[in-house]
Amino acid sequence: MRFWILLCLSALLTVPAVADIFSADDLAVARELREQALAGDGGYEIVADLTTRIGPRLAGSEADPRAVAWAERLLTEMGFDRVWLEPATFPTWHRNLERAQITEPVAFDMVTLALGFSPATPAGGLEGEVVMFDDLAALEAAEPAEVKGRIVFIRNRMRAARDGSGYGPAVQARSIGARVAASKGGLALMIRSIGTSSNRFAHTGTQRFDADTRALPAVAISNPDADRLERLIAMGEPVRAEIEVDAEFIEAYTSHNVIAEITGSKYPEQIVALGAHLDSWDVGTGALDDGAGIAIVTEAGRLILDLEQRPDRSIQIIYFAAEEIGLWGGRAWAEANADNFHNIQVGAESDFGAGPIYEIAARVSDQAWPVIKAIQAELAPLGIELGDRRASGGPDFIPAAPYGMAAIDLRQDGLHYFDYHHTENDTLDKINPEELAQNAAAYAVLAWLSAQSPIDFGSGETLLDEEAARAAE
Amino acid sequence: MRFWILLCLSALLTVPAVADIFSADDLAVARELREQALAGDGGYEIVADLTTRIGPRLAGSEADPRAVAWAERLLTEMGFDRVWLEPATFPTWHRNLERAQITEPVAFDMVTLALGFSPATPAGGLEGEVVMFDDLAALEAAEPAEVKGRIVFIRNRMRAARDGSGYGPAVQARSIGARVAASKGGLALMIRSIGTSSNRFAHTGTQRFDADTRALPAVAISNPDADRLERLIAMGEPVRAEIEVDAEFIEAYTSHNVIAEITGSKYPEQIVALGAHLDSWDVGTGALDDGAGIAIVTEAGRLILDLEQRPDRSIQIIYFAAEEIGLWGGRAWAEANADNFHNIQVGAESDFGAGPIYEIAARVSDQAWPVIKAIQAELAPLGIELGDRRASGGPDFIPAAPYGMAAIDLRQDGLHYFDYHHTENDTLDKINPEELAQNAAAYAVLAWLSAQSPIDFGSGETLLDEEAARAAE
Repeated sequence: MRFWILLCLSALLTVPAVADIFSADDLAVARELREQALAGDGGYEIVADLTTRIGPRLAGSEADPRAVAWAERLLTEMGFDRVWLEPATFPTWHRNLERAQITEPVAFDMVTLALGFSPATPAGGLEGEVVMFDDLAALEAAEPAEVKGRIVFIRNRMRAARDGSGYGPAVQARSIGARVAASKGGLALMIRSIGTSSNRFAHTGTQRFDADTRALPAVAISNPDADRLERLIAMGEPVRAEIEVDAEFIEAYTSHNVIAEITGSKYPEQIVALGAHLDSWDVGTGALDDGAGIAIVTEAGRLILDLEQRPDRSIQIIYFAAEEIGLWGGRAWAEANADNFHNIQVGAESDFGAGPIYEIAARVSDQAWPVIKAIQAELAPLGIELGDRRASGGPDFIPAAPYGMAAIDLRQDGLHYFDYHHTENDTLDKINPEELAQNAAAYAVLAWLSAQSPIDFGSGETLLDEEAARAAE
Repeated sequence: MRFWILLCLSALLTVPAVADIFSADDLAVARELREQALAGDGGYEIVADLTTRIGPRLAGSEADPRAVAWAERLLTEMGFDRVWLEPATFPTWHRNLERAQITEPVAFDMVTLALGFSPATPAGGLEGEVVMFDDLAALEAAEPAEVKGRIVFIRNRMRAARDGSGYGPAVQARSIGARVAASKGGLALMIRSIGTSSNRFAHTGTQRFDADTRALPAVAISNPDADRLERLIAMGEPVRAEIEVDAEFIEAYTSHNVIAEITGSKYPEQIVALGAHLDSWDVGTGALDDGAGIAIVTEAGRLILDLEQRPDRSIQIIYFAAEEIGLWGGRAWAEANADNFHNIQVGAESDFGAGPIYEIAARVSDQAWPVIKAIQAELAPLGIELGDRRASGGPDFIPAAPYGMAAIDLRQDGLHYFDYHHTENDTLDKINPEELAQNAAAYAVLAWLSAQSPIDFGSGETLLDEEAARAAE
C-alpha cells in the first residue's frame, strides 16, 4: 500500500502529464506518419524483392553476402543519410543432406530437417531402436540404460498462443536435447518439430551452442510423421529408425550488420534503434522470419526519411546478421557500442512475423514510462494497448541488456507464427500486406516520437528489473 | 410445359407416395444405424491403421500387395459373409527422383513432384529458358516458335469450391499439357500445382494415358514456388530452369480389387455396391484420398453386418485397385460384371475426402427417384439435402456408366479437399472423426435402405441422360 502511494506521488512530482509530453507539431507528424503507413503496403515490395531475388540466407551461406549487398544497395538508394556495414564473426554450419526413416515394424520415410550444428552421421546413416520421451524433463529423469545405444525421440507438442509463450517450454527439447541424450549414451536425437501446424513440414533451428553441442546427430521430424511414429510405438512392437545427416561445421565466418541512419537535427549523437535480422534459416525464403521485420522497419524509416524535417534524435535501422544461429549480429552491435549506451536511447526489433501489433511494452526508466504512455495514445487507433514493463526489445537487443539499454516491444499477434517458423513453408504468401502496414505504422510512430521525446529513456541506468516491474503492475 | 404435366402424371400414376416406400421396421433400422454411426468414430481406427501400417500405396508399388493383404484380412476378420479378390491389370509408373531449380537470373530450388507417367530426363537433367502461359488454352494457341526448345510453365490457379468444380478446368494443364507442349517442340512441362493451398507442397497426379503421354518430362511445382517464379518472370530478365526426373514405366502389373459381401436374405443376387479405392498416390499417406473412403464404407458395412437381420439385397463393399493412375480397378470390375448389371442395383463410391456430406444426387430410373427422396428424408437429420439427377457414383463407377448402372452420389464438402489432394500433406491429422462419422452414418442409411427398397433402381435400363435431367429440374 505504501508502495503504491509512493509510486503515485513520484509520478505526480517528477513527470509531466501525458498530454504535455509531445508538442502539437510532433503529434501531428506522428498522425500523418500513421495514416501514410496505413495507406501503403508496409514494405511488402521490399520483402517480396528480398524473398524473390535472395531467398533463404543462412548466415555464412553463399546467399549471405548477396543479402548484405542487396541491403546496402537498397538502403543507399532509399537515401538514408548514412549507410554502413559492421562486421560480426561467428561459427556457422551448412546442411548437405538429412533423412530419417522408420525401418521396423514397417518402413517409411519421414519429412525431416537436421537441427542447426548437428554433426554428420557416418555416411550411410546410423540405425537403432527408438525410445520415446514425453519431453526433455522425462529424458533428463531417465536411467542411462533406457537411452544407451538408442535413438531418442522427444514427442513434446508446442502449444499455440498469441504471445508465442508455448515456444519457450517446448524448444528446450531442441536446444539441449542432444546434449542430454549424449550424456546418457544415446545414439541420436529426433524431436517432434517445435511448431503449431499439422502441415507436413519439419522445422529446424539452432541448438544451444557450446563445446558439447555437437555431441549427437539431431533432427526434427514433421508433426504428422511424429503422430505416425507415436501410433506405431503404441502398437507395442519395437520400432527402429535410420537417420542420416551430412553437414559441415564452419569455425569462423564474417558477415555484417547493415545499418542506415536518419541523422538527428538536434541531438545527432542520440540514437533510436529499430532492428530486424537479415539472415534466415536455410529453408523457406525467410519471409516471416524475418523478411517481414526488414520490411516493417525499413518502411517506417522511409516514411520518416520522406518528411520535410529531420527528427531531433538520430534513428538507425539495423539489419542484424546471424540472428538465427546465436544472435551474433546483436552481440557484435552491443560490443561495438559498449561505450555509447548512454547515447542509445532505446532499441526495438521486429522479429515475430507479420501479424498485427496488439500491445506496446517497455523496459525504460520511471521517468520515461509516461513517454511510453504518450506514445501508446498515438498507437491506440491501430488497436495497440499498453502492456507491461518487461520488454526485451527483441532477440538482437538481448546482448544489449547487460549495458542497461532501454527497450521497447511492439508485440505482434503470433498465434500462427509457429505454423511456419523455420520451415520450408515460410514464404511470401504468408504475409498479409494490410497487417504489415499496421506494423509499419506503429514503428514509424514509435521511432518518430522516441526521437522527439524531451525525456531520456534511461539507457545506461540500472533499469527496473523484472521483479520490480511485476510488483509495480 | 407439356413435359412437366407428363412428368407429374407419370409420377402420380406409377410410384407410391414417399411415406409408403419403406416399412416402419426398415425405417426404424435405418434410424438406429444412423444413431449408432454418429456415436462411433466413422471408421477412424481403420484409416489410422491403414495410414500407419501401410502408408502410401501407389498401384504397382511394393506397398500395393501389402495393402491388398491388409484389406483382405481386415474384411475377413470383420466377419463379412464373403471376401474375395478380383484381378486388375494395368500399366504403372515408379518415381525415383525429381528436382526443379531456377538457375537464372537467381538460383533456387523449388518443391516439385514429377507427374504420373512422366518419362525420365537425361541423367543430370535438362536445362532451358522458361516460357510462361496463363493456361492450357494459351499454350494451345501459342506459335510453335514460342515453345520450341523451352521449358513450358503453365501458371493456372485452381479455384476452391465446395463441390470441387475448380478442379476440372485447372487439371487440363496436367492431363494433357505435356502432350500439347511436345507437339510444339517444348523441352519439358512445369505446372503450378493443381491445388487450393498456399502451403509449399507440390501435387502430383496422372496424365491422360495414351501413346503420346510420355512425350515430355512433366513436373508440378508448389504454389509458393510458382508465385516466386511468376515474380521473377515479371522482373523482365530471361528465366532459366533445370529439371531432372528419374522414373520408370511398368508395362503391366496385376493388383486386385478387394470385395466383401453382406449376402442378402431375400434377393442375394441383387447388389448394392459401396466403393472406395485402396490405392493412393506415392506421397503423403493417402489419408483423405482415399483412406477416408475406405473407412467410411467399411464402417457402414460393419454397422449393417452387426444387425440381427441380413438385408433383403446383398451389399458389397468394394476396395478398388489402381484408381489414381487410370480407374483400372473400376474398369476391371465393370468388365467382370458386364453380364450382371441387371442385378447391380446401384453404386456409390466415397472418394472426396472426409468432409461432411451435404447432398444426395442420383442417376436412377424415374420409378426409383421417389426411393431416393425417401432415403433423403432419412438423411435429412444429418444435414443432407436432395440434389439433382446427374450422379456419376464416383470415379470407379464411371466405367460402369456405359452399362447403364444406376448411381448415387453422397456429395461431400470439398472446400479444403484440394488443399491436401495428391501431396505429401495428405495425412491422418487432416481427418475429423466427427465428420467421418457423419459420412459413415449416411452410407449406412443409404446402403440399408437401398437394399430394402421394393423398387428397382433401373440399372441396365437406359437411364435419364444429362440433358433430360437438367430439363426435369
